[in-house]
Amino acid sequence: MKNTFGSSVSVTIFGESHGSMIGAVLDGIAPGVTVDEEFIAAQMSLRRASGSISTARHEADKVRIVSGVFNGKTTGTPITFIIENQDTRSRDYGELAYKARPGHADYTAFMKYHGYQDFRGGGHFSGRITAGLVASGAVAISALKAKNIRIGTHILSCAGVYDRSFSENPETDIEKLGTSAFAVLDESVKDKMIAGIEAAKSVGDSVGGRLETVVTGVPAGVGEPWFDTLESVLSHIIFSIPAVKGVEFGDGFGLADMTGSQANDPFRSENGTICTETNHCGGILGGISNGMPIIIRTAVKPTPSIYKEQNTVDLNTSEDTTLIINGRHDPAIIHRARVVIDSAVALCLCDQLALRFGTDWLK
Amino acid sequence: MKNTFGSSVSVTIFGESHGSMIGAVLDGIAPGVTVDEEFIAAQMSLRRASGSISTARHEADKVRIVSGVFNGKTTGTPITFIIENQDTRSRDYGELAYKARPGHADYTAFMKYHGYQDFRGGGHFSGRITAGLVASGAVAISALKAKNIRIGTHILSCAGVYDRSFSENPETDIEKLGTSAFAVLDESVKDKMIAGIEAAKSVGDSVGGRLETVVTGVPAGVGEPWFDTLESVLSHIIFSIPAVKGVEFGDGFGLADMTGSQANDPFRSENGTICTETNHCGGILGGISNGMPIIIRTAVKPTPSIYKEQNTVDLNTSEDTTLIINGRHDPAIIHRARVVIDSAVALCLCDQLALRFGTDWLK
Amino acid sequence: MKNTFGSSVSVTIFGESHGSMIGAVLDGIAPGVTVDEEFIAAQMSLRRASGSISTARHEADKVRIVSGVFNGKTTGTPITFIIENQDTRSRDYGELAYKARPGHADYTAFMKYHGYQDFRGGGHFSGRITAGLVASGAVAISALKAKNIRIGTHILSCAGVYDRSFSENPETDIEKLGTSAFAVLDESVKDKMIAGIEAAKSVGDSVGGRLETVVTGVPAGVGEPWFDTLESVLSHIIFSIPAVKGVEFGDGFGLADMTGSQANDPFRSENGTICTETNHCGGILGGISNGMPIIIRTAVKPTPSIYKEQNTVDLNTSEDTTLIINGRHDPAIIHRARVVIDSAVALCLCDQLALRFGTDWLK
Amino acid sequence: MKNTFGSSVSVTIFGESHGSMIGAVLDGIAPGVTVDEEFIAAQMSLRRASGSISTARHEADKVRIVSGVFNGKTTGTPITFIIENQDTRSRDYGELAYKARPGHADYTAFMKYHGYQDFRGGGHFSGRITAGLVASGAVAISALKAKNIRIGTHILSCAGVYDRSFSENPETDIEKLGTSAFAVLDESVKDKMIAGIEAAKSVGDSVGGRLETVVTGVPAGVGEPWFDTLESVLSHIIFSIPAVKGVEFGDGFGLADMTGSQANDPFRSENGTICTETNHCGGILGGISNGMPIIIRTAVKPTPSIYKEQNTVDLNTSEDTTLIINGRHDPAIIHRARVVIDSAVALCLCDQLALRFGTDWLK
Repeated sequence: MKNTFGSSVSVTIFGESHGSMIGAVLDGIAPGVTVDEEFIAAQMSLRRASGSISTARHEADKVRIVSGVFNGKTTGTPITFIIENQDTRSRDYGELAYKARPGHADYTAFMKYHGYQDFRGGGHFSGRITAGLVASGAVAISALKAKNIRIGTHILSCAGVYDRSFSENPETDIEKLGTSAFAVLDESVKDKMIAGIEAAKSVGDSVGGRLETVVTGVPAGVGEPWFDTLESVLSHIIFSIPAVKGVEFGDGFGLADMTGSQANDPFRSENGTICTETNHCGGILGGISNGMPIIIRTAVKPTPSIYKEQNTVDLNTSEDTTLIINGRHDPAIIHRARVVIDSAVALCLCDQLALRFGTDWLK
Repeated sequence: MKNTFGSSVSVTIFGESHGSMIGAVLDGIAPGVTVDEEFIAAQMSLRRASGSISTARHEADKVRIVSGVFNGKTTGTPITFIIENQDTRSRDYGELAYKARPGHADYTAFMKYHGYQDFRGGGHFSGRITAGLVASGAVAISALKAKNIRIGTHILSCAGVYDRSFSENPETDIEKLGTSAFAVLDESVKDKMIAGIEAAKSVGDSVGGRLETVVTGVPAGVGEPWFDTLESVLSHIIFSIPAVKGVEFGDGFGLADMTGSQANDPFRSENGTICTETNHCGGILGGISNGMPIIIRTAVKPTPSIYKEQNTVDLNTSEDTTLIINGRHDPAIIHRARVVIDSAVALCLCDQLALRFGTDWLK
Repeated sequence: MKNTFGSSVSVTIFGESHGSMIGAVLDGIAPGVTVDEEFIAAQMSLRRASGSISTARHEADKVRIVSGVFNGKTTGTPITFIIENQDTRSRDYGELAYKARPGHADYTAFMKYHGYQDFRGGGHFSGRITAGLVASGAVAISALKAKNIRIGTHILSCAGVYDRSFSENPETDIEKLGTSAFAVLDESVKDKMIAGIEAAKSVGDSVGGRLETVVTGVPAGVGEPWFDTLESVLSHIIFSIPAVKGVEFGDGFGLADMTGSQANDPFRSENGTICTETNHCGGILGGISNGMPIIIRTAVKPTPSIYKEQNTVDLNTSEDTTLIINGRHDPAIIHRARVVIDSAVALCLCDQLALRFGTDWLK
Repeated sequence: MKNTFGSSVSVTIFGESHGSMIGAVLDGIAPGVTVDEEFIAAQMSLRRASGSISTARHEADKVRIVSGVFNGKTTGTPITFIIENQDTRSRDYGELAYKARPGHADYTAFMKYHGYQDFRGGGHFSGRITAGLVASGAVAISALKAKNIRIGTHILSCAGVYDRSFSENPETDIEKLGTSAFAVLDESVKDKMIAGIEAAKSVGDSVGGRLETVVTGVPAGVGEPWFDTLESVLSHIIFSIPAVKGVEFGDGFGLADMTGSQANDPFRSENGTICTETNHCGGILGGISNGMPIIIRTAVKPTPSIYKEQNTVDLNTSEDTTLIINGRHDPAIIHRARVVIDSAVALCLCDQLALRFGTDWLK
């Protein structure tokens, strides 16, 4: 399977950065889930570029649902989202067509698609394609919320500045993140991060960062010991988001430096429910949810489109050359990636829950 | 799909720690691949426990191939590996049956399997089940090697001690790692790491670590932009290995702290082949191989079986209690996990290559 | 997987009979395949209703390709087809909403989707949804033709009248079928079949029929012994076409009455190529193509929408009632189903060929 | 996926006719299902050859369960069945190694596996491989029976002699079929069928036949509109059984000759449950179960191993030649195939039910 993810609940995405439209087909969502078009629009606007720290390309990102919703509710059959591309300036890319941009997929796409790929604006590799994921994810997030499963992502680090981690009351944190265009838990770090992004931008450069995601309310017993552990399926979809180069769960790489007595989360009973005193494992043990918050951290590399001159190769002649990228680009995408991660995680969990408890569970 | 991974080349694993046998079915490997039983045995011995820093349980891990190999070569039909469990002491687990061991899957298995799971020695969640993965992986590694694709993993960190990373000549490094039971690139760190493990063991504790893997020779153009990026499929299988809690590619989480001009790998032409000057992206751009070495780092949590008293809950009564784990356990598994990662990576790549170039490519 | 079929080449379909648009996403087709929009339009018109023996609903079925095609050729990334619904008269269905139409999916959809399904015109169960399959199939058929693989389907029987079977030169037959709106090999049976359809129509009834399909040029060695035999994967997609209730290969059910000496196809060498003297097995042995023409026969039940009064149950009250279906319906769909079968078979074979020989094979 | 079928519940089969052992891995069956080894043995004996109308090869077919069952119940993790091959006489095949047997997979296997396949006794293509399917199916049948879902198959026709079809009380018929080694509903046809088989055998020939299967108790609302209709998934697994060349549901090909008013099954309410007055559709409408008995008919071609001289080609030289097959073969397999169909249908339905209602439903 290529551009389709999931089994019981699946999403198929399509489109290119400078094609006529992009979109997604979301299949397997239980019938009867309320589809809130305002919420979808709000999620789309979280992903959309805005302000000085994003690309100057502006897309309305108006989502049109053309199937699978009837009388405001999901029917249980495929939900199709289409989004028109409007503000395309393909001439910006003309001269780059055969100069592989470092950090981009131009060269690897060329080796896979033999030059037939739509190279304009990154084509099908563009971060723009995540718009379909966000539209689909909005329905998944709504369906989960109705079952008291909540998801939130904040910028844990950007330009060397760190936010605090989720507290012991992650649901309060999720609420706090709300619809902030630059989601941090400690408001005092926001301006420093933005200053870091602008400093990079001022020299034609870009920055990356870390995102931290929490999911609350997932019942214990979801996931598989092999090969579809919750970590496996979540990392699978998260690693398909452009620019993601690392994923960890719970204390993740930090666990490598602990001893067993530090890392093990002791169990205790709380009002008849079994929970853990700490949550180093990030809510997943043996690949299966333990009922505690699921914690995911994601590394996002700096935007590869920078304005500095770079060494590269001409794909037609295989000769060394240099390139300067013009066009409109983001000096950082970390703040826009937040809602993409939420969406990906929601889609994956809807699939896992439907597999575990049946196709009506999210109804 | 549960205990099966892969599409064109797939592996299905089965068995429990204290059952009569464990094993795997490897399907889709091209016909005509030489099956070297000595190499399989050598790989098995890399995984097998030995010495003071491993469990006292000793299994011969003799692999018997009961299908799919004819006249010493693969037939193209399923290859089945069976391995007898011999040194089981199930009585060690009797009293633990309903006391959920912290850091283990006991509680999550209980919530998924409602108490019907074989709890002895971790049952199907046991690291022992990786033996089938290693046997299968040995055939995959051989098939790849015949196409000049090589894989090697070393212990990047353990007990706070760091090894050096792969050099610019990773194939030399891979050769050097060879069949070392404790694979490090800088021999001088080995004793320090082992001392760290033994120190933890002496107080009934355990340690984790980081593994670093390199793959050379993968042709450019393998992988998908969505959702089966190379990072996605590799992380999927790696995260299903018990104790893995983090996976990163190239500079991974380190990329989050770089600028675009630092992170982008400039292209250059070398004897007509396009390569990159640096390899921060770890050989994968846009989800697709670029022909450079693939670099993966994996976080392994400390072994959860420790000898210290721990707080837990009785799954039958839901009441708080404490437990002391006896039995035989590893104070570290990082050195044994190395060959498991190699095997998982090899199986995943065989699948990707067969999907890309057809089922005869590895012939 | 629900509305997605295939692995290396896959198709995802969406839409409802009376929604705003229907369509399909075709993924995995090799890059560089010429996309002939005129051919797509011609295939669509074969599927489209016309004349006295089809529904009075008329749809332009103009296909718009919104992704995956660049400069007239496939890019290798998802190709999306959208088709507007124009001539919808949903009021025709108002009163039927809760009266389950016999032979239709109303009742089973109600049990699966709990009343949330879009019931208008059969919603997602409508034969109209095959339009997306035909658009996708047109690209698949073109790609196969470029590799000398040809597909043709004729009406073997309708209203009790039989056409002759494919001759020893099936490619000539395929050419002959061409773009006939009522595809038979023996032109003399055509009027009799149509007379049978009109006779049924005149009394408010409908008829079914048999389709026979041939595929030439598939190389030997494609398919799996288990579980993805060519028969398995072809029947899988064919049985998902509405109204199909039987599928057979080669002499099919007729083989049940033969002896082994009658049924076995002797091999012989012809200019160095191994072929069979007869083709009772329909080009497939042990689930794998043998290089001979693939022969498939499909049973299509009569259109369930008839104008006679029928007994049924009110889904709201569970009480017995009667219904008379108004609206616009086909007295036969057998002639329109022909191109749907061709499309389904082509999509399935593109997948099998890409799995066998790699994703570039159809380039 | 190759030798694995199913998604939530899956089966993987392995082995060759003359290898050391064959078997299957059954994954995803709910935990807590009672595993009745006597019932498994009884099912195996239905498949096993016996008497004058079967091969003289006699295998004990003792099934050993080596994983996934604990204290007599399923654990929820993979159940592995292994069966030793004992009565192999590979010398019988020596001279046939490169003479493609007509009607067999020798030639197609050669084109797929390039001569590396284990050709002895048909290798992985042998009907013997169905033993693993039957062992797995026995557990599936038990699980379904505990939910009041029953499956039965009888020989509808053999050697030109027809049995009656299932009555209006199919559960009584299923009970009647019981463990008969030659399952017919009308005992009076049995001797005629066997006489037909023996007549063919006496002249070194073989016969085929038709099987009819009924499944009762499947709740309404299971299956998908596209592409995983119940007909699609059932035909997928049934067509992978060697020798099956046709599958139909309900009146199947007979529906092609009916009018809509004859074919439509009127609904009626019976004690609050909606059912149909007739069952021409075979319990499936729009790809989804309607709660009525599911009716499947399967065409089985005559055993291709006959003792008459046949024309063929030498695969090494591509030259025409003749062959006479010796060895031990079945003049008919229709009576042995019955339990294979039951098993395949049961495995497929367990998967569909788990997908629809969750992994605990069969508990």
